[in-house]
Amino acid sequence: MATKRKVRPIILITNDDGITAPGIRNLVEAVKELGKVVVVAPDKPQSGMGHAITIGQPLRMHKVDLFGDVEAWQTSGTPVDCVKLAVDKVLHRKPDICLSGINHGANHSINVIYSGTMSAAMEAAIESIPSIGFSLLDYSVEADFEAARFYVHKIVSTILSMKSDKHLLLNVNIPPVKKELIKGVKLCKQAYAKYEEDFDERIDPQGKKYYWLTGEFVNFDKSKDTDVWALQHNYVSVVPVQFDLTNYTLKKQLEKKNLFK
Amino acid sequence: MATKRKVRPIILITNDDGITAPGIRNLVEAVKELGKVVVVAPDKPQSGMGHAITIGQPLRMHKVDLFGDVEAWQTSGTPVDCVKLAVDKVLHRKPDICLSGINHGANHSINVIYSGTMSAAMEAAIESIPSIGFSLLDYSVEADFEAARFYVHKIVSTILSMKSDKHLLLNVNIPPVKKELIKGVKLCKQAYAKYEEDFDERIDPQGKKYYWLTGEFVNFDKSKDTDVWALQHNYVSVVPVQFDLTNYTLKKQLEKKNLFK
Repeated sequence: MATKRKVRPIILITNDDGITAPGIRNLVEAVKELGKVVVVAPDKPQSGMGHAITIGQPLRMHKVDLFGDVEAWQTSGTPVDCVKLAVDKVLHRKPDICLSGINHGANHSINVIYSGTMSAAMEAAIESIPSIGFSLLDYSVEADFEAARFYVHKIVSTILSMKSDKHLLLNVNIPPVKKELIKGVKLCKQAYAKYEEDFDERIDPQGKKYYWLTGEFVNFDKSKDTDVWALQHNYVSVVPVQFDLTNYTLKKQLEKKNLFK
Repeated sequence: MATKRKVRPIILITNDDGITAPGIRNLVEAVKELGKVVVVAPDKPQSGMGHAITIGQPLRMHKVDLFGDVEAWQTSGTPVDCVKLAVDKVLHRKPDICLSGINHGANHSINVIYSGTMSAAMEAAIESIPSIGFSLLDYSVEADFEAARFYVHKIVSTILSMKSDKHLLLNVNIPPVKKELIKGVKLCKQAYAKYEEDFDERIDPQGKKYYWLTGEFVNFDKSKDTDVWALQHNYVSVVPVQFDLTNYTLKKQLEKKNLFK
């Protein structure tokens, strides 16, 4: 078993745009020669779900024939639910790596917090499964995934070939340009950026108010080691991500002040 | 305006158990003498929503009369949506502090990732609003909030009285014991713990399979500076939280290896 695993790693694939999105098909294509791929993904788009899990409702899961000879399941759950179901009910073991995406649209900077793509990857990392989330900075269904496939293959084969931390978690974003224009892969930190929110206030046919979330992305981080900088300069950005959210600096500051005594 | 703000801070309150939960009523009671309180909270329970935002659907918001002379609004959105709506459409400015909770049930250790309570607080911190999430380790609707109210008041008044980081974000958990048994407040780190998941597999009346998420909490972190340890020893745990998820240690390790070249 141990030997077999080394020869042909099990690659779990999920996403948050839903199992029919072009992004996940391109992810499967990019890595299927690298191992035994199994897809467990939401049956509908789940963007912006963050690290949501389904507590108060039952989940459904059905086998689907969407990826040729690659085993695939769709579930009624969130991206995080998909990872949990995959490990417990489909694979009955931990995969060697979990890949999430390829997301249609950016998950750089603060987006990592809202992203279902990255939450699925984080759930796997918490479960001691090395994990990578991939996003292409192009929201279109007709997005060109050629460069993305090339870099996905490069990064996944590199990670599979090394002895990696079992909690390894990478947030990879790919600029929306032709492969020839991409300058390479850059390790980055998460930029401090946020959405300057606004709500579009409208009146429904019954005369009642409702609100649509809108908002403009603003980057406050001018340093050159961020993912936003890298992407603006046509690099593929790779941000190593952690799930220990303790702010140790603030902890020390508050300890010094000897508060709450 | 600046002077007025110092005299009577604006305190935004939200939660993820919904606006009718006893926890939020106790939170309002605990702090209403400390400033002008405004409540904007979900109209239904939103536990486990993580950092979900509502993208594909319009949001509704209605003024409600649930907290006496305290202004209160219920929304159809997630806890994170509530913070966004509060700032943009209710207050039309940033509150001086945002409080989330009091959650019915633990949000220590890895729960910070799944918690709607903490995500609402994090959203505020991203928006440069000092913010605190409170949770009581008691799921019951009849939970005794007396000790919780005492410590909420103590912690909020301390934070309001100091010049705090505008991104200050605290995850506060309160043990489910009488006030006399609580030993004090402890600054902690997030314990590495997780849920050993399982799904309850059932058959519906049509003969089709469905799954309920279950799972047992397991603490892998035996150190004495964690929130789990503090709570087990009857301390109120306070974990300072960050939203820069960059894993700088892993970044350095990967940089040394000079990967992806």
